Amino acid sequence: MAPAPHLAAYVEAERDRIVASLFDWLRIPSISAEPGRASEVAASASFCAGLLREAGFEHVERLETPGAPAVYGDWLHAGAGAPTVLIYGHHDVQPVDPVDLWTSPPFAPVIVDGECLARGAIDDKGQTLYQIEAARALRSEGSLTVNVKFLVEGEEEVGSPHFEDLLVRHRERLGCDVVVVSDTSMISPEIPSICVSMRGLVAFDVTVRTSTIDLHSGTWGGTVPNAAVVAARLVASLHDASGRVTLPGFYDRVQPLGAGEQASLDAQPFDEAEFMAQAGVRALTGEAGRSPLERTGARPTAEVVGLTSGYGGVGIKTIVPACANFKVAFRLVADQRPDEVAQQFHTWLDTRVPPGVDVSVEAAGAVAPAATPVDHPAMASLVHAIETVWGTTPLFTREGGSGPEEALGRVLDAPVLFLGVGLPGDRIHAPNERMVMAQFWKGLLAAGELLIELGLR
Amino acid sequence: MAPAPHLAAYVEAERDRIVASLFDWLRIPSISAEPGRASEVAASASFCAGLLREAGFEHVERLETPGAPAVYGDWLHAGAGAPTVLIYGHHDVQPVDPVDLWTSPPFAPVIVDGECLARGAIDDKGQTLYQIEAARALRSEGSLTVNVKFLVEGEEEVGSPHFEDLLVRHRERLGCDVVVVSDTSMISPEIPSICVSMRGLVAFDVTVRTSTIDLHSGTWGGTVPNAAVVAARLVASLHDASGRVTLPGFYDRVQPLGAGEQASLDAQPFDEAEFMAQAGVRALTGEAGRSPLERTGARPTAEVVGLTSGYGGVGIKTIVPACANFKVAFRLVADQRPDEVAQQFHTWLDTRVPPGVDVSVEAAGAVAPAATPVDHPAMASLVHAIETVWGTTPLFTREGGSGPEEALGRVLDAPVLFLGVGLPGDRIHAPNERMVMAQFWKGLLAAGELLIELGLR
Repeated sequence: MAPAPHLAAYVEAERDRIVASLFDWLRIPSISAEPGRASEVAASASFCAGLLREAGFEHVERLETPGAPAVYGDWLHAGAGAPTVLIYGHHDVQPVDPVDLWTSPPFAPVIVDGECLARGAIDDKGQTLYQIEAARALRSEGSLTVNVKFLVEGEEEVGSPHFEDLLVRHRERLGCDVVVVSDTSMISPEIPSICVSMRGLVAFDVTVRTSTIDLHSGTWGGTVPNAAVVAARLVASLHDASGRVTLPGFYDRVQPLGAGEQASLDAQPFDEAEFMAQAGVRALTGEAGRSPLERTGARPTAEVVGLTSGYGGVGIKTIVPACANFKVAFRLVADQRPDEVAQQFHTWLDTRVPPGVDVSVEAAGAVAPAATPVDHPAMASLVHAIETVWGTTPLFTREGGSGPEEALGRVLDAPVLFLGVGLPGDRIHAPNERMVMAQFWKGLLAAGELLIELGLR
Repeated sequence: MAPAPHLAAYVEAERDRIVASLFDWLRIPSISAEPGRASEVAASASFCAGLLREAGFEHVERLETPGAPAVYGDWLHAGAGAPTVLIYGHHDVQPVDPVDLWTSPPFAPVIVDGECLARGAIDDKGQTLYQIEAARALRSEGSLTVNVKFLVEGEEEVGSPHFEDLLVRHRERLGCDVVVVSDTSMISPEIPSICVSMRGLVAFDVTVRTSTIDLHSGTWGGTVPNAAVVAARLVASLHDASGRVTLPGFYDRVQPLGAGEQASLDAQPFDEAEFMAQAGVRALTGEAGRSPLERTGARPTAEVVGLTSGYGGVGIKTIVPACANFKVAFRLVADQRPDEVAQQFHTWLDTRVPPGVDVSVEAAGAVAPAATPVDHPAMASLVHAIETVWGTTPLFTREGGSGPEEALGRVLDAPVLFLGVGLPGDRIHAPNERMVMAQFWKGLLAAGELLIELGLR
């Protein structure tokens, strides 16, 4: 079955305007992790609000939080009995360092060989934009048969610290029959897939201090604790020899895959050489006895995302560093709970920090793991929409990333569908993030098809 | 016995000019570790040359090296049969970060409560200046009875990479009967002491790379090697459970202390609470079964001076870092050899770096350990000079720091005397480096007394 011809015609007619909108949005450096960028995150929210207004949405406004603002807009004229769809995306982006590895400036979008290069191209401005444009296409020609609400968050990249509060506060206004999230990937351009679960995330920023000042390594070395070594030993002991996380009780709530899901996972095409090439690595590591797809999608992990101590300049400085910082992000799977893992991490630290060393821990975001039942009726609509655009039946996958999906489904009491067109080589969170434009246009068509399908239910 | 009255009179008359010279020199940010400071290290060399010329020294010139220049000057008019003394100091300084911990700018010297605060105050511009002024005092009144040569290095703080070549190249011109080094400390203002050995140093800058780019920790976490963790495991395994360095053969050449030296070490006053207070620590660590003084002076060590990987900004960035760097400085004692330890470190790395991880190592300086026999006749002159000024017999100590002393003694075939007035609380290499001015003036008197004593031999 071919895509609805009016959607294809819309893409044809509006292509240049849509690309110009995408570029304008990508030029705003809305890095939520950097406090100095707050005004730019706010500018991104305002830009998004403008997109929604131009698309014909009503009640468009910024939803303020103690951090960065989200954006809301709705179109509720589908008539009595029509279902309501809430579409989720986020307008904030990751930091850009190391900025010298970018081949073009991260906030000066360009299209090279059919790929849009910019921070936020695929994660998540591009994926949010095709949803807005798909709804706009249907609304503008009077064929939008579902009520649509948009909720575009501004703190996803820092672990959505205020998102659940926001959902609870606006629960009635956000009420819906189904949630559609556009922030995931597919196996490849030729093998479309649907994510049916995402890992949770709980992260910590840990500082250890061994002295009030850096000490001369000749005068004091060999007698005083070295903060770099203390931090390194903590980091080195996060995993045991079999690659398992050493937090006490960490695996207690981890649910094994059901036989059916395990079979589906095993059936997924996986080319280890291609996987390593995409990652740019020459070896794979991780939990013993689990396949790579299992390790990224179905198993919890601990990753150290930063480690800093002492002298980082050119050459050598003969000191014993007094202070060290490391940041660790735990990815969680059902039924792990962020607050329990936080407690486990504190217990783990307490038993490992040597005497005379001060340690302080800051929580840096917490998101519970999320899953959508494969047999939910709304899933059939998503499968059909993707089949229509890609011409082949999508596979089901588990994604390793984390988002606020669990809270969305739980607070709004609605199934969460993941429509995402990212690809494994998109370099999200890394230099030279890209979006393959062919995927963007297919995403727009699939988003429109999904709204049509959901209107038929 | 009181100090020579003319030296005291000189200090009285010249005090303001000397302090002004000290301040002018300290204002030059001659940080040899920072390539961008090369012109300022050169300016410091020129300033030092000016001091020597004003002091009446001849043949003053910059001795160029492939790195930063040293400064030479001599006064060779003591007459036939008079001994020649070569005085060593260095005019380069350590980096100043973390600069926000300084209570006053590091290159804006001030005197507060009798302490001069500035980078280089005690290490080593202050200690070099009192030597120059002592020689100037004796020369200006015609009582200099030894030939004096000054050699003031510009790369001491980066491990003296070109110093031995320079000594060899200028061996004849630098020929002397005794070397005096002013770059060490005393036990306390009330307990003068003489350093009789210094540890050697060999340092490495190690970079590990696990991927071509930082990877998204959700998509790839749990399957790919994490550079921060690889580096942390290397750092954590530098020492075994008893605090011994794990390099193969590291202790093979370490000479145990002789019974006499062990007794002298054991007799040294040591207040553990005071030691910890000076270091700003609440616990001591290190090699099991050795006292703190033994560990800093008589035992070799490995200290990690820097460790950097991944995201170091505010909050969290969900990546798997692709690259990590650590810097490690080994302090060596007799008879360890820097080149052998370098080989041991490479072997150690080879057996520990996991498969698929690239590692590169840059050598960052190598200095052999140095020792002066306590019973050498020139030592009696130094003991006498210090007794004269402090009014009490100095103890002998071993210093943990490292300098080019071993090469000086070996290449020039002369005993090396350490006259140094630093104190344990001087914060060398750290923020708020200081020199206690009372020690500086006593150092000037003792340096003069030493030249007088050596002229009597």
